[in-house]
Amino acid sequence: MGSDTICALATSTGGAIGIIRISGDCAISIADSVFIAKNKKPLNQAKGNTLHYGEIYDQQGTLLDEVVTSVYRAPHSYTGEDSVEISCHGSQYVLQAVLQALIDAGCRQAQPGEYTKRAYLNGKMDLSQAEAVADLISSSNKASYKLALSQLKGHFSSELATLREQLLKITSLLELELDFSDHEELEFADRGELLELAHKIQNRISTLAHSFETGIALKKGIPVAIVGQTNVGKSTLLNRLLHEEKAIVSDIHGTTRDIIEDTTVIEGVTFRFIDTAGIRKTQDTIEQLGIERAYKKLEEATIVLWVIDTLPTKDEIKGMLNRTVGKQLILVHNKIDKETNSSNRPVILSCGNNNIFAAEVFISAKLNQGLQALEKAIYESARIPEISEDSIIVTNARHYEALTHANESISRVLLSMEMGLSGDLISEDLRICLEQLAEITGGQITTDEVLGNIFQHFCIGK
Amino acid sequence: MGSDTICALATSTGGAIGIIRISGDCAISIADSVFIAKNKKPLNQAKGNTLHYGEIYDQQGTLLDEVVTSVYRAPHSYTGEDSVEISCHGSQYVLQAVLQALIDAGCRQAQPGEYTKRAYLNGKMDLSQAEAVADLISSSNKASYKLALSQLKGHFSSELATLREQLLKITSLLELELDFSDHEELEFADRGELLELAHKIQNRISTLAHSFETGIALKKGIPVAIVGQTNVGKSTLLNRLLHEEKAIVSDIHGTTRDIIEDTTVIEGVTFRFIDTAGIRKTQDTIEQLGIERAYKKLEEATIVLWVIDTLPTKDEIKGMLNRTVGKQLILVHNKIDKETNSSNRPVILSCGNNNIFAAEVFISAKLNQGLQALEKAIYESARIPEISEDSIIVTNARHYEALTHANESISRVLLSMEMGLSGDLISEDLRICLEQLAEITGGQITTDEVLGNIFQHFCIGK
Repeated sequence: MGSDTICALATSTGGAIGIIRISGDCAISIADSVFIAKNKKPLNQAKGNTLHYGEIYDQQGTLLDEVVTSVYRAPHSYTGEDSVEISCHGSQYVLQAVLQALIDAGCRQAQPGEYTKRAYLNGKMDLSQAEAVADLISSSNKASYKLALSQLKGHFSSELATLREQLLKITSLLELELDFSDHEELEFADRGELLELAHKIQNRISTLAHSFETGIALKKGIPVAIVGQTNVGKSTLLNRLLHEEKAIVSDIHGTTRDIIEDTTVIEGVTFRFIDTAGIRKTQDTIEQLGIERAYKKLEEATIVLWVIDTLPTKDEIKGMLNRTVGKQLILVHNKIDKETNSSNRPVILSCGNNNIFAAEVFISAKLNQGLQALEKAIYESARIPEISEDSIIVTNARHYEALTHANESISRVLLSMEMGLSGDLISEDLRICLEQLAEITGGQITTDEVLGNIFQHFCIGK
Repeated sequence: MGSDTICALATSTGGAIGIIRISGDCAISIADSVFIAKNKKPLNQAKGNTLHYGEIYDQQGTLLDEVVTSVYRAPHSYTGEDSVEISCHGSQYVLQAVLQALIDAGCRQAQPGEYTKRAYLNGKMDLSQAEAVADLISSSNKASYKLALSQLKGHFSSELATLREQLLKITSLLELELDFSDHEELEFADRGELLELAHKIQNRISTLAHSFETGIALKKGIPVAIVGQTNVGKSTLLNRLLHEEKAIVSDIHGTTRDIIEDTTVIEGVTFRFIDTAGIRKTQDTIEQLGIERAYKKLEEATIVLWVIDTLPTKDEIKGMLNRTVGKQLILVHNKIDKETNSSNRPVILSCGNNNIFAAEVFISAKLNQGLQALEKAIYESARIPEISEDSIIVTNARHYEALTHANESISRVLLSMEMGLSGDLISEDLRICLEQLAEITGGQITTDEVLGNIFQHFCIGK
């Protein structure tokens, strides 16, 4: 397949070095038109997977930089095409000049995600793996990174391949049934087996679809709300919870601060704090609308930290429990440094019910005491499944949508089977289910529009 | 020479890929302890200058990333040591995890500039070339980039080598003179030649030292002040002048906005606008101190844009000329769109003196008219020498200091010669001059303190 040759900066500017990527049929010859190796040997005589030291010149013969070029020969490259990577000095000016020289020499500036799109189109990876590349690059915590890596390694793809095989098995058995439809005794024998297999498939698809809730929480951060009356120390607590992570992240050169503006990472999982500033006004105003808006925000949370410095009344506890149904409510006794503080006794005991809170912890945000126990309680309340490099948890909204549709189709198949409908009626839903699963990996025909939607969110240079 | 093995991130985070560099005696074996190539072949069996696709694992055997490694074998690497570069996915998490795995496997996190320092210590480049690496990376305009590249290519170094040879020639001739001091007729024959050579050297060193003024202006931007009364359109003009460059720079992915906050690039040269906000208050207040402070700021400028919308009086012109002695004063007639504007006539004619302004231009900042002519006038007023890749202009304060001292020494040599002092007295100053020049390239013994000062300003990973 003939392709035009694209170039782009693959690294951020601001580092010691910057990498420019070239990919396409003319990648090596275009590189040769701007690059002169120290040993004068042109790159088109170079083997694949080799490094070459030399100089880059523009079309006017002006020296631009001393560089190292990497030569990759199709299909042994990221894109599957001939590719050259140029490792330049990391100056914004140098990188722009080299890019311009490549464009003058016949390259086209790459679109966002175009390298990965080409890798997909050339069969180097399927669509879900391509999406995992973007997820991997944007991952900022261990959990989302492991999920992206698992998806990139093709664990999700092979799970889908297994489901596809099973669906095809049902289809072929149904066709067999139709071919032998005169022989009534065949039908019932097969239907039992088919029903069992369809149940198994439906079960698996449903599990995958439901994993999206966990997946999206891991990817974007598990939402945590901090609530409580004014002056109980919510802000100090929030600062304490955010503090640790900021210190860790700033070890990395060039980390963007705003990424971690209001998230913290506990045991490799990101927790995202929801702004519930309005909630503090609750008890003493009559602006019921405003209060409701604040509680609306609370609804987004999976975990609620209820911060107190005096023991709540039974009514207050009842009110809070009503507001946090289905959430993990952690009762945080703050200001334990104040010895006379009435909140130093556990509420659990006084209520005579030890299941109403996910946890009850005692801290002094001010003196930085008890924070580890609180973090442990937060992490445990999140009930994160153990994630290994082959875990399959759906993190992509497109995949979730396809799985939800596939789940509907396979459910209709099951219903039809249970109703004893004929094979040709069932086959249609099986075919739809297969197509919906195939959408995820892009194995079937994928439209330009779908591809455009996927790759536009990539960064340039990937 | 045995060296410990260092690792660091060589790119900024936030791009599609990130590069981690390893250098030192154990670079390849440490890389082998975390990397498994697709073809299972260990890197220590790989030739230099080759690329290897595979996977990175931490010490617990957890997969961290799919990567490409580059193997460089001593002395054919940037540092002159065995080196490995790992091209990872550009996630901040991934890069941190891989760095940690390398540290667990026995690497030490590199100090700022430590790679380049090793390159210097291993004789891959001299000290002025090492400094050029940092300049090249931070260069944000064509002029400073060309100067850095010229220095990196060793043009300055070879110029210094020539001077050194000439100084050594004088020294040896003086020694010859001392050996033959009984033969009086020899002395005078040599002294004429020596004096001529010393003059030539002094001339060259002085030129180099003086080039620092241009060098520092090109590196940091040529200072331009915009002055004029309130409401003549200074702010609009400044926005117009800054606008073009912002558009160009933002083409580059990840460009930091604040770098160009108040600079603009005209024909590859950076111009830096000085805040002279206070100067507008001049005529109508008695706060003489405040006014003086504003004029003090004006003193930093090389070029002054005097913006007017009505013709200035002769006294005003005289006042401004007194304030801008030695500067390039450009008279900018703004608001030429207002047809009745009295400033549409050139002042030059009415003064009968066409040398008082560096240029006189007519613009409408509001309608974006005449701006090209103004930029041309600014660029020409800067009187930038033609810069090619082998231009030698000193841009480094350390070099400037050494050259200034060397200039003093060689001047003393000249004086001594002219006074007819004996060779042994002159030799001492010659020796000092040689040492001072040698400091620049680090050819003589360079202390750890000097090296520390130089490399601490580098980024990590370089």
